[in-house]
Amino acid sequence: MSEHDRTLFEALFIPRSIALIGASGDAKKHTARPQRSLRTHGYPGRVIPINPRYDEIFGERAYPTLRDVPGTIDQAFIMVPSDAVADAVAQCADRKVPIATIYTDGFAEAGAEGQRRQAELLRLAKESGVRLLGPNCSGIYSSTPSCALTVNAALERLDITPGPLAVISQSGSMTGGLISRGLGRGVGFSRVVSIGNECDLSVGEISDWLVDDPETGAILLFLETIRDAPRLARAARRAVAAGKPVIVYKLGRSEVGRDLAASHTGAMAGTDEVADAFFRANGILRVDSLESLFELPVMLSGQRPSARHRVAVMTTTGGGAATVADRLGTLGVDVVPPSESVVANLAKKGIDINRNRLTDLTHAGTKEEVYGAVVSEMLASDHCDLVLAIAGSSAQFQPEISVGPVTRADRHGKPLAMFIAPHAEAALKQLADAGVAGFRTPEACADAIRAWSQWTSPVDVPAPSVAQLAAVSATVSELRGQKLNETQACAVFAALGVPSAQSQIIQDPSDAVSLGFPVVAKVLSADIPHKTDAGGVVLNIADDFALSRAAQSILANVNQRHPSASIDGILVQRMEKGLAEVILGYRRDPEVGPVVVLGVGGVLAEIYEDISVRMAPVGLDEARRMIDEVKGLAIIRGYRGLPKGDCEALAQAIIAVSQLARLPEQEVSEAEINPLLVRREGEGVVAVDGLVVLRANEA
Amino acid sequence: MSEHDRTLFEALFIPRSIALIGASGDAKKHTARPQRSLRTHGYPGRVIPINPRYDEIFGERAYPTLRDVPGTIDQAFIMVPSDAVADAVAQCADRKVPIATIYTDGFAEAGAEGQRRQAELLRLAKESGVRLLGPNCSGIYSSTPSCALTVNAALERLDITPGPLAVISQSGSMTGGLISRGLGRGVGFSRVVSIGNECDLSVGEISDWLVDDPETGAILLFLETIRDAPRLARAARRAVAAGKPVIVYKLGRSEVGRDLAASHTGAMAGTDEVADAFFRANGILRVDSLESLFELPVMLSGQRPSARHRVAVMTTTGGGAATVADRLGTLGVDVVPPSESVVANLAKKGIDINRNRLTDLTHAGTKEEVYGAVVSEMLASDHCDLVLAIAGSSAQFQPEISVGPVTRADRHGKPLAMFIAPHAEAALKQLADAGVAGFRTPEACADAIRAWSQWTSPVDVPAPSVAQLAAVSATVSELRGQKLNETQACAVFAALGVPSAQSQIIQDPSDAVSLGFPVVAKVLSADIPHKTDAGGVVLNIADDFALSRAAQSILANVNQRHPSASIDGILVQRMEKGLAEVILGYRRDPEVGPVVVLGVGGVLAEIYEDISVRMAPVGLDEARRMIDEVKGLAIIRGYRGLPKGDCEALAQAIIAVSQLARLPEQEVSEAEINPLLVRREGEGVVAVDGLVVLRANEA
Repeated sequence: MSEHDRTLFEALFIPRSIALIGASGDAKKHTARPQRSLRTHGYPGRVIPINPRYDEIFGERAYPTLRDVPGTIDQAFIMVPSDAVADAVAQCADRKVPIATIYTDGFAEAGAEGQRRQAELLRLAKESGVRLLGPNCSGIYSSTPSCALTVNAALERLDITPGPLAVISQSGSMTGGLISRGLGRGVGFSRVVSIGNECDLSVGEISDWLVDDPETGAILLFLETIRDAPRLARAARRAVAAGKPVIVYKLGRSEVGRDLAASHTGAMAGTDEVADAFFRANGILRVDSLESLFELPVMLSGQRPSARHRVAVMTTTGGGAATVADRLGTLGVDVVPPSESVVANLAKKGIDINRNRLTDLTHAGTKEEVYGAVVSEMLASDHCDLVLAIAGSSAQFQPEISVGPVTRADRHGKPLAMFIAPHAEAALKQLADAGVAGFRTPEACADAIRAWSQWTSPVDVPAPSVAQLAAVSATVSELRGQKLNETQACAVFAALGVPSAQSQIIQDPSDAVSLGFPVVAKVLSADIPHKTDAGGVVLNIADDFALSRAAQSILANVNQRHPSASIDGILVQRMEKGLAEVILGYRRDPEVGPVVVLGVGGVLAEIYEDISVRMAPVGLDEARRMIDEVKGLAIIRGYRGLPKGDCEALAQAIIAVSQLARLPEQEVSEAEINPLLVRREGEGVVAVDGLVVLRANEA
Repeated sequence: MSEHDRTLFEALFIPRSIALIGASGDAKKHTARPQRSLRTHGYPGRVIPINPRYDEIFGERAYPTLRDVPGTIDQAFIMVPSDAVADAVAQCADRKVPIATIYTDGFAEAGAEGQRRQAELLRLAKESGVRLLGPNCSGIYSSTPSCALTVNAALERLDITPGPLAVISQSGSMTGGLISRGLGRGVGFSRVVSIGNECDLSVGEISDWLVDDPETGAILLFLETIRDAPRLARAARRAVAAGKPVIVYKLGRSEVGRDLAASHTGAMAGTDEVADAFFRANGILRVDSLESLFELPVMLSGQRPSARHRVAVMTTTGGGAATVADRLGTLGVDVVPPSESVVANLAKKGIDINRNRLTDLTHAGTKEEVYGAVVSEMLASDHCDLVLAIAGSSAQFQPEISVGPVTRADRHGKPLAMFIAPHAEAALKQLADAGVAGFRTPEACADAIRAWSQWTSPVDVPAPSVAQLAAVSATVSELRGQKLNETQACAVFAALGVPSAQSQIIQDPSDAVSLGFPVVAKVLSADIPHKTDAGGVVLNIADDFALSRAAQSILANVNQRHPSASIDGILVQRMEKGLAEVILGYRRDPEVGPVVVLGVGGVLAEIYEDISVRMAPVGLDEARRMIDEVKGLAIIRGYRGLPKGDCEALAQAIIAVSQLARLPEQEVSEAEINPLLVRREGEGVVAVDGLVVLRANEA
């Protein structure tokens, strides 16, 4: 962390003096809460209420304005009406207050006028160098030293245990709920931030600071959107390197389907899938259940992303273990049977287990020495990468049988999870106290293990090919300012190294072509994106005469349906064949930036929303994974004895298209090959239609 | 309930005298537990230990054998070694004990020898009239009057509150965990059964008794399989009529994929989907999370399946509400905005809400009078069918604001659910005491509401067409004893009223046909199910000459690849066209019986596992719903302006094929039309290939 960042970090979380601008002397008002909360939770620094109507508030000297306050002010907490916020920030600027935290709402969340007001506020802050948290945020909480600077009644009242979890929440009203849930699970907190509208300080920047915060061991994010993807990506990558997991619960899953109706793959990539791709690329774990947010960090304590994710399950209750294992199965987690050596080692101790995927010790295993021997043996063995221990009713009445050995076991650096079938708060507390992840529900347990199983090191992107980038840059430069037709789009793909079908442009239906038949004829026009709907495509043309008729019919159709379209001619293209038609797209996602999208062509694949998305650019490993992820591409992966397609050429095409993210100024805003034909192994791929939209020509 | 059933019910749950065969005098042994458990829990009846080595056990007179016991014995609990169980049952027969509950294991769960032993036991029981619970079951628990007849240590120790929930569990080791979880949520229990191997008394039969049990208000099932589907279906239908929900948690979801690799639709219907179809057809609610099993019954108290399932959501925390609503969206639940009249009525009280789908009262709504007015207005309004109330941190510290009005609100007969964002045990207890469903996690809350939203009245099946049944019976009778070829299979479908493509059989390649070209030629043989793989199909034959060549090539191929197959000729069929190819299948599922399965044809649809399954036979409404459920059939439902297919004719075909379930003796064990072509609206459907397997000819 730079010296400057450290100053900001300390001003935010460890301020020595806090000015409460708009603090009330009426204890019933929200604006009286921060002062009370700070003192209740034992804030050791100076609290300075700012209110022209009081000389003193709750025993602390009050000042009319910030300008009247003597000494240094580390942070100002602004609670004045929205039209007075700018003046308060100006006062902060005068007094060189590094951070102003703004509780006041009525900004970007409140329509056009609020957005204007927020923009003005940000301008003022940028000019003066004051950094802003919020507006529309409820405050922050810091445990060491205590700083409960918040309007949140829950945070004021909760007895918050210090601990390793930092929380940043985009929902102010959920902050208390999150902390309360964590405390109910026996975990403690380092820093808590209600981030508000993120007009300046963002989730990414604060996460980045938290990576270097010695009090913080894991960073939990409650998100509704992603506003600062590059900074969050950087923070997450640094967090992985520092051994501090970043775990996110993000809303918006059910909006996935919305954009899928649109006609291009860009829109086919639903926001939620893109968010998933972003999280995975940067080593962020995403949980699907709220409970896991607090149970997972314990399980990951001391862990780094690993290459293998084999889960060993041991239990004394078959039914109880099945509730978790069944769900692990639906989530695609690999549950493995014990190795021969595990079986042999246990047999030496008189414990007979079989090689089923569930090691069910049954009632006979509800003995401390048996349970302990099995969990220790599994933790020591290299046949698995995580051990899930399950116990039944004995854990409720005799925790010493199963919970005891689990808490004492040498973990050999392996993650360890325990699910207890009955309602057994005492056993769970014992696990929490010992730093073992104890799960309350089979669903949260399976979700946490699923999140771990998908946790991989941040994706490395290999260095770009300078020649390729130069070629595509040159092509794009030449086309700058134009709305591109299909031939021009294919020129961009050609510069990237993706070949198109051999073609020729004719201007008159009677023009001959020197291509082998059969051919396809298509109207060539940047103004007609949906050529088929416009009657602008004829397939399977067998000879010159048929071509001439087809060209006439195309021109007649498009003249009638798109009379004002500018027509660049008729594109005549060799009919190409492939084993599969894929859609390969590139676009800039409004939340996370450039992405590359792969899908299967055709109406059925569209209905099934069968796509794979990655942050662009991608390297070879990720490109191959994308091909594996698209279910429908089974047809070129050797499904049912079908001939295999050239997946390597397809992977190279994915890499190539993803390079558009590297163009200076990201000049290409959208690109799509639809379809790209995949031929047999070794025979390559060929684009037969394409679209490129330059940034300058976006709608 | 018949007099006989009542006697059995009382012998099982309200026995006046219980013989403990194999009771131990050593308190440390499992076999000593039932006696202690009965007495600890205050069993008021007579306990009779049977053990030749004691005169008295723990203060109760012991007898060497059942034959030595004076007076009536209502139930015997058998704990002797497996090879002594038969003799114990024989003693029960002698003494006319109505029910013997068998704890001993080593029966059907223990390989071939155990299966033989269990069959022998069942034979003995059937002959003598003793009904058996188990073997391999841990016992039963009954609250009123108390009867804790169990070897389960948890049930012995738990302080079980009497209440309306009955539980039947196929996992003995989970029984304690289930009860413990329910008690932790403030619910109480009427009867608890560990059902064991179900060699005689089944989940279905006991559920059926529980429908008439005045102490039982809801029946919860923890299942690993379904062993007695017809009886369970009957019980569930009676339960719906009696206003007692049957709620199931069934394992086996992750085994869905297994059968999907098989080549016919029968196998494409994964067991789990069939189980879902069975539950829905019979008005059984299936939960996906273990928590919901205990939270849902409270929400359903006094409810019946309804026709509409619109959910209104109100909250004081937008983020907290989004955690549930986002998930409801992914689960396809319909969240509706308030009606104009709700908005107007609240405005009259000075409460302004908008018409968004989430009614977010924000911080301003954290007042008792506001929260109360909104929840009451929503419950009274007819714009929604369920109200979901959500509260934030205020519910933890000031439950009177939100929990208070929720517990007092007039529900107008509507289900009411509350999710509390923070960890708030006191508020949840207050809800439980008031009989309001309070949810601990957004996921369980959404799961319970999803289960309710899919809860419909048991499906009625219209009376069969006598003529149709007679026709297909006659056709099947004629074919009895044969392995059917394609023409014979199509004759069965024709008898059901599903037309096949016009065709002719030729015996020699030089034979002419009187069909219009183009045609298809296929080898006709009951011995070659995969005709295409055998080189036995030629498509798109244009004329007589080509047909002759095709027939020669087919015969050459099949003679080479299937030299021993019996060839019935070459089937020449008109080439038919349709808008879509569907697969329509019928089979008998090993768990639940006859099912009808609909899917889209082609390799992609197979990869996407896009099918709909119903118990057969089905009526028109269900057939239409099946068509709606198959995603890929969007292509005939008007997707993207594509021409609509004849969905009504397809529905009729589904109904027709499902009638095979009505054949006496279910003579057809498997049938499949693959593909069935769906033509344009009004133009019908046509089968172009089919397979029928008669029961007698099953492998």
